[in-house]
Amino acid sequence: MSKANDPTLKSWVPVPADSDFPIQNLPFGIAQCPGGEPRPAVAIGEHVLDLGVVAEAGLLDDLGVDRLLYQEPALNGLMRAGSKAGMRALRERISDLLNAENGTLRDDADLVASALHPAADVAMALPVDVGDYTDFYSSEQHAFNVGAMFRDPDNALLPNWKRLPVGYHGRASSIIPSGVPIHRPRGQMLPADADEPVFGPCRLLDFELEMAFVTFDGKPLGESISTGEAEDYIFGLVIFNDWSARDIQKWEYVPLGPFLAKNFASSISPWIVTLDALEPFRTDGPVQDPAVLPYLEQDGGSHVDLDLEVFIDTGNGEENRVSLSNFKHMYWSMRQQLAHHTVNGCNLNAGDMMASGTISGNDPSAYGSMLELSWRGTKPLTMADGSERKFINDGDSVIMRAHNSANGVRIGFGEVRSLVLPPA
Amino acid sequence: MSKANDPTLKSWVPVPADSDFPIQNLPFGIAQCPGGEPRPAVAIGEHVLDLGVVAEAGLLDDLGVDRLLYQEPALNGLMRAGSKAGMRALRERISDLLNAENGTLRDDADLVASALHPAADVAMALPVDVGDYTDFYSSEQHAFNVGAMFRDPDNALLPNWKRLPVGYHGRASSIIPSGVPIHRPRGQMLPADADEPVFGPCRLLDFELEMAFVTFDGKPLGESISTGEAEDYIFGLVIFNDWSARDIQKWEYVPLGPFLAKNFASSISPWIVTLDALEPFRTDGPVQDPAVLPYLEQDGGSHVDLDLEVFIDTGNGEENRVSLSNFKHMYWSMRQQLAHHTVNGCNLNAGDMMASGTISGNDPSAYGSMLELSWRGTKPLTMADGSERKFINDGDSVIMRAHNSANGVRIGFGEVRSLVLPPA
Repeated sequence: MSKANDPTLKSWVPVPADSDFPIQNLPFGIAQCPGGEPRPAVAIGEHVLDLGVVAEAGLLDDLGVDRLLYQEPALNGLMRAGSKAGMRALRERISDLLNAENGTLRDDADLVASALHPAADVAMALPVDVGDYTDFYSSEQHAFNVGAMFRDPDNALLPNWKRLPVGYHGRASSIIPSGVPIHRPRGQMLPADADEPVFGPCRLLDFELEMAFVTFDGKPLGESISTGEAEDYIFGLVIFNDWSARDIQKWEYVPLGPFLAKNFASSISPWIVTLDALEPFRTDGPVQDPAVLPYLEQDGGSHVDLDLEVFIDTGNGEENRVSLSNFKHMYWSMRQQLAHHTVNGCNLNAGDMMASGTISGNDPSAYGSMLELSWRGTKPLTMADGSERKFINDGDSVIMRAHNSANGVRIGFGEVRSLVLPPA
Repeated sequence: MSKANDPTLKSWVPVPADSDFPIQNLPFGIAQCPGGEPRPAVAIGEHVLDLGVVAEAGLLDDLGVDRLLYQEPALNGLMRAGSKAGMRALRERISDLLNAENGTLRDDADLVASALHPAADVAMALPVDVGDYTDFYSSEQHAFNVGAMFRDPDNALLPNWKRLPVGYHGRASSIIPSGVPIHRPRGQMLPADADEPVFGPCRLLDFELEMAFVTFDGKPLGESISTGEAEDYIFGLVIFNDWSARDIQKWEYVPLGPFLAKNFASSISPWIVTLDALEPFRTDGPVQDPAVLPYLEQDGGSHVDLDLEVFIDTGNGEENRVSLSNFKHMYWSMRQQLAHHTVNGCNLNAGDMMASGTISGNDPSAYGSMLELSWRGTKPLTMADGSERKFINDGDSVIMRAHNSANGVRIGFGEVRSLVLPPA
């Protein structure tokens, strides 16, 4: 375990007890601090540390990474230069610099004034320039629910589902950070009992509660990454809201998969929480039966125990929690997803994003989409203001959060929050 | 029509009669000329003009594009700076500089020596950094053939097929230029009559004959591009070999579409032939019945008449032509594909690539994949060396070419050529 995870560490930066960002977390993002440009940064409590300033002060020089990479508007360059070991060393250096017992940064008032900013004064951008984005479909309860609703409850899972982590490619250009509103998409739909499709605004707008991991550069095209090697290629994770237009999806998706039903927007939390910081929450996945093929076999501790929450704010500022799920409710692990993705020789680049697919637990309160929570609209959810929701309305904000605690230390992701606007 | 298309133009650079690259073409690529770095270039006859050198000499300054963009290892920056009008002006300027009657470049022997190189001495790279890659499925004969083979000849087309241009997202990272060998992928397959999948090298490796267009930056996320506006966002085209592992595909693709069966490699021709240069070959598409929804309606001249050829070299240097198709055999036009892609507000970036899907004509000799040409392996093709092919063997090279002539001027794409190696 990284020394930066030591639960006894304290920072000289004040960290509230319920903060997602204690010194044991130190997630990476791209922040525009007052007077600065968007560039690499780290969250600490209710503050943001501008790594561009810290690097310029020479406090990171011995890590062997070009100072200019700390001035770039995406983390890809830093990740490419450092890969797993380099980013681990950087997180440990920042842990040292923020340690209550270390005066190097703490006692340099001018440097602190230029490097450390209240989070409220900072604008967060996308953390990486996403080259390729892949979406998996790896929660058994979600796949079962969808199969039961749209096909046959007695044969809800397709024959390949427990043999390989089903996945497909998504659109990278429309991945946006928390806080950017989305427009309800327009598209083609086939109304019930109609012979002809119609065009108009999506009527069944949905969220999907997912987690996504961000990769380092992989091996050259043609080579594979094993499950044992996989975590060396995973930097960290973000919360991923895979917006979905259910009516557009139903009409378009046969035979080549979802397209316009998904690619109008996907919203992510802005801080990449490193896999290292999540180490205390490792847990085993489910027993896989039937046994997987050898290239998908893996050691224990493949999953992460992380509470996942979804809230709807209907516009009055009140948060209605509609789902409490957990990232451990995955049938396929990240290691298996990454090994499967590359077993044919597919290459990876630093900044690629691989999302889990909707994460639904067994209890209906842990379902990760409105499609499942309202069971295709047959069981509307009642909000605190008395209104009902089968799907998402214009004016609603959807908020997702993720966190867990161990040894008295809470590690969290902050949130991804998105307001839904009418069609543009 | 652009003045650079004038069929009476002659260049001072010698151009053989059967060249794909007369002065009326002037396709753009990224070339590494002797002594130079990979950077923007234009093909002329059997030579390559290094735009980095031409720009440094000041001959492009008045076009208003930063000289540094001519030094970049991808065309994205130039395309972003210039968009449609800027790239058109650049092509016209190069046409002027290469015109037999213009002495500016012709008579500057030192500049010619550093800027103009025999194509044989030049290494071609990917022309653009592909942000997102989309594959459509827009040839009716291909969709019919696949539907007839795998579903039902009486209902070969699915209900949505004539209502919208079916498409899906593909992998951008594994798009490679002509000349780069590919490795036969490994993966999971379900053998005929088996209950359990197996893992091993793909046995049914196939090409798909496609054309792909390259986009300029689109509108902001949330806004749509109409069919009437679409061509303002299309820079030009390349030949696209969408390598496919049929046995992997069959097992994995339900319900979310092709994934590992496609993302191990896609090979493209290195020169982007501009839409302007293809102007003489415009033709109408088929009458679309049923009528399309208003957002997919379009004017005439939506298609391009371009002969497309596929050859297999079994390793003896002899080219066996296995397909002669044509880009006009498309049901959906590029305009319709682009309008559909953005109708939900999906954004585009300069360098995005959108491929046509396999282009099959009505005659069996015009089918665009081995799956169709050998009708799922039931009708092997005989090569000149006496061997038979149902699919592609290790050691085979697959070569694709595209060209047409009008007014005595031949416009072509060069080729995409790829050697198939055993699994890595």
